Amino acid sequence: MIINKAFRINELGHLEIGGIDCVDLAKEFGTPLYVLDEQSIRNVCKRYVKAAQAYPDSLICFASKALSVKAIYKIIQSENLGTDVVSGGELYTAAAAGFDMDKVYFHGNNKSYDELVMAVKLGVHCIVVDNWNELELLNRVSRDNNNAKIKCMVRVNPGVEAHTHHYIQTSLPDSKFGFLLANGSALEVVKAIIDSDNLEFLGIHCHIGSQIFDDKPFIAAMDKMTEFAAQIYNNLKTPVKELNIGGGYGIRYMPEDNPLSFEDYITGCIQALKEMLKTKNIPAPRLIFEPGRSIVGEAGITLYSVGSIKEIKGLKKYVAIDGGMFDNPRYALYQAKYSCILANRTNEKPVETVTIAGKCCESGDIIIENANLPKAKTGDILAVFSTGAYNYSMASNYNRNLVPPMVLVNQGKAQYIVKPQTYEDLISRDDIPEWLK
Amino acid sequence: MIINKAFRINELGHLEIGGIDCVDLAKEFGTPLYVLDEQSIRNVCKRYVKAAQAYPDSLICFASKALSVKAIYKIIQSENLGTDVVSGGELYTAAAAGFDMDKVYFHGNNKSYDELVMAVKLGVHCIVVDNWNELELLNRVSRDNNNAKIKCMVRVNPGVEAHTHHYIQTSLPDSKFGFLLANGSALEVVKAIIDSDNLEFLGIHCHIGSQIFDDKPFIAAMDKMTEFAAQIYNNLKTPVKELNIGGGYGIRYMPEDNPLSFEDYITGCIQALKEMLKTKNIPAPRLIFEPGRSIVGEAGITLYSVGSIKEIKGLKKYVAIDGGMFDNPRYALYQAKYSCILANRTNEKPVETVTIAGKCCESGDIIIENANLPKAKTGDILAVFSTGAYNYSMASNYNRNLVPPMVLVNQGKAQYIVKPQTYEDLISRDDIPEWLK
Repeated sequence: MIINKAFRINELGHLEIGGIDCVDLAKEFGTPLYVLDEQSIRNVCKRYVKAAQAYPDSLICFASKALSVKAIYKIIQSENLGTDVVSGGELYTAAAAGFDMDKVYFHGNNKSYDELVMAVKLGVHCIVVDNWNELELLNRVSRDNNNAKIKCMVRVNPGVEAHTHHYIQTSLPDSKFGFLLANGSALEVVKAIIDSDNLEFLGIHCHIGSQIFDDKPFIAAMDKMTEFAAQIYNNLKTPVKELNIGGGYGIRYMPEDNPLSFEDYITGCIQALKEMLKTKNIPAPRLIFEPGRSIVGEAGITLYSVGSIKEIKGLKKYVAIDGGMFDNPRYALYQAKYSCILANRTNEKPVETVTIAGKCCESGDIIIENANLPKAKTGDILAVFSTGAYNYSMASNYNRNLVPPMVLVNQGKAQYIVKPQTYEDLISRDDIPEWLK
Repeated sequence: MIINKAFRINELGHLEIGGIDCVDLAKEFGTPLYVLDEQSIRNVCKRYVKAAQAYPDSLICFASKALSVKAIYKIIQSENLGTDVVSGGELYTAAAAGFDMDKVYFHGNNKSYDELVMAVKLGVHCIVVDNWNELELLNRVSRDNNNAKIKCMVRVNPGVEAHTHHYIQTSLPDSKFGFLLANGSALEVVKAIIDSDNLEFLGIHCHIGSQIFDDKPFIAAMDKMTEFAAQIYNNLKTPVKELNIGGGYGIRYMPEDNPLSFEDYITGCIQALKEMLKTKNIPAPRLIFEPGRSIVGEAGITLYSVGSIKEIKGLKKYVAIDGGMFDNPRYALYQAKYSCILANRTNEKPVETVTIAGKCCESGDIIIENANLPKAKTGDILAVFSTGAYNYSMASNYNRNLVPPMVLVNQGKAQYIVKPQTYEDLISRDDIPEWLK
């Protein structure tokens, strides 16, 4: 039932993460609490980086949208990763952590003028151009900044879409992201960038989906992308210096989830790319991967205290926790599945199937349907696994509940990386107009 | 196309709200921007309060979860409304606005000990007890606070469920909220409260759904609730002093939405209740309604700037705005429908059907599918209607986008009631452990 093999059960029968008893964490820091294991993150980073070394010039970029807080940037920088950001806020956070801007890629389907200026002034490595309006904006940003030469990649929709086990090579090309390969608009924009005095063409980028469990859809996408690279090389006499095949590699939320190892995924992609470069006779680009969820997802758990328990005989049993859709909206949004454990009673066998409900005033405020647990009691500590990605980053103050703090643990040490929010914080921006006073 | 009849088109062909041109609002305060019209809120309050006067003892309580900010409490208090809160955070906000605690009802399926202590110390009117654990907690809170007598209502699941036009009288009683009438547990808890020295029994509460467009489901629920009141009166020799039939009254998101008038809804409920009291021969309780969405929903709009526009010939056209699921997650969560207008070009006829997409890096980041608009251009101001409820209250910093500020407008005046968030705010709680420095 424990998703991350780096966690263990200690002699008290308690769940332990990063060498610390979860019951102690709950006592010291309170609940709800996000907990991240630093060594788990570092291990994944190291495995990715090492596997990618089979290719002469590669970069693993952490997808900030999974979890953008200052401490994470410190960790991934020390593991030699780059990062991709999708907003001024993520960029600001990376910069505040002292992240090397030369390893930052700026994505997004609707970047603002201000965000682009900020990116150019901070000196990010490149802007991944999504649409024609952005190209216009970038030329303007360059002119307004002493004709600074702005390095660009082009976001391409290769017509491959993948989710978990399935992928489609002829998906409807109706995404809001990027330029279509199929209708020639991707080639047009590359030409426009090459022709612009203000812009420098670096390469091409695609992102095909999320929770992908094997390398095949990536290889299918790379086939289209290298075909496109050959077209650019042959028709526009310009090499594609960087090939970014995006993120989307899956993690284990449930025991039955079984993605390929990182090594097999990266190696599969690299071998396929080497073949393609040979066959298509194009210069080798830098190869970039953008894992987000798989870097931090399984390293994280959320600790909750069990509160009210309600059994509706013959129908349903609710175990209510002190969190909910405000700290993890993924069930409400996607009916996402999670697994959990009573962290203070891990040795007891599951005896009942319950619904883990949050404390929001909304029927849809569920964290897990059909969780198998020992008979839960008020005061038990519930640990939900694989919450390191897209939990804190999607958290809200719905019902004016407080966003939980986050603690980083590392071989027996624990410290806040996001400090607790307070009631004062909630009203810190509230104001009352003169005429209402 | 304009949902709220209080808004108008001015001589420039611009949308005007509260006597102010939306184009000017966008210029002065920036976009994305939540805008609330104070007079619209006050009008709804007055209509509710007036209609409810047909019953000797009534109270309209604003459901805070729709929008809990200090200025709103000032407005509803001056219109003689009470409020219901569902968390320590909402209670804190109401208290910070100086709200009369004797008109505060505290709901929730999993209130914590600390929240209950806070409520008792602040002197809220009553706690709406949801489950047995809470009853235990309340007895403890009372003992820990000099045996303060805590006034309680009981949250009842009457077996009526309603959404928009439909309702079911024999719905599966599997809600996470309240005590079932059907199996006798509601009566049991009322008895336990009456028997407790620390608690005072005030009455019963139910909430049957949301976006309900007529009075019939409320009347069906009241029939069950008055039946229960008669049971309490006859078996336990205790009158139900307060009957709270919850909220859930619907608003117009789309032109085709057509709820009964507030007057017809309230009057229908009151007439039915008077009949029931006579037939069932029970003392008249105070009657409480808890509208949330219908108080603030239609009073609010969100202003966005149009950014990138992407046409995928023959398939789809995206109009991207500078907001998204971080300021309005209701399409992503419920596929909720909204209507919109180009606020700067209201006189132009719709000529195309587009998808209004946000700026988040997520395919599901849609605000409106199939919006009919004039040919939108970058820089246009898009106004989305009926965003006063459950937008700001559900907002997040997803993708580290900033939660938009909120402006209150009133007959030509405009002032922030929620000031802009800054990038500094985003990292204000971020911390870096010693060992990472």
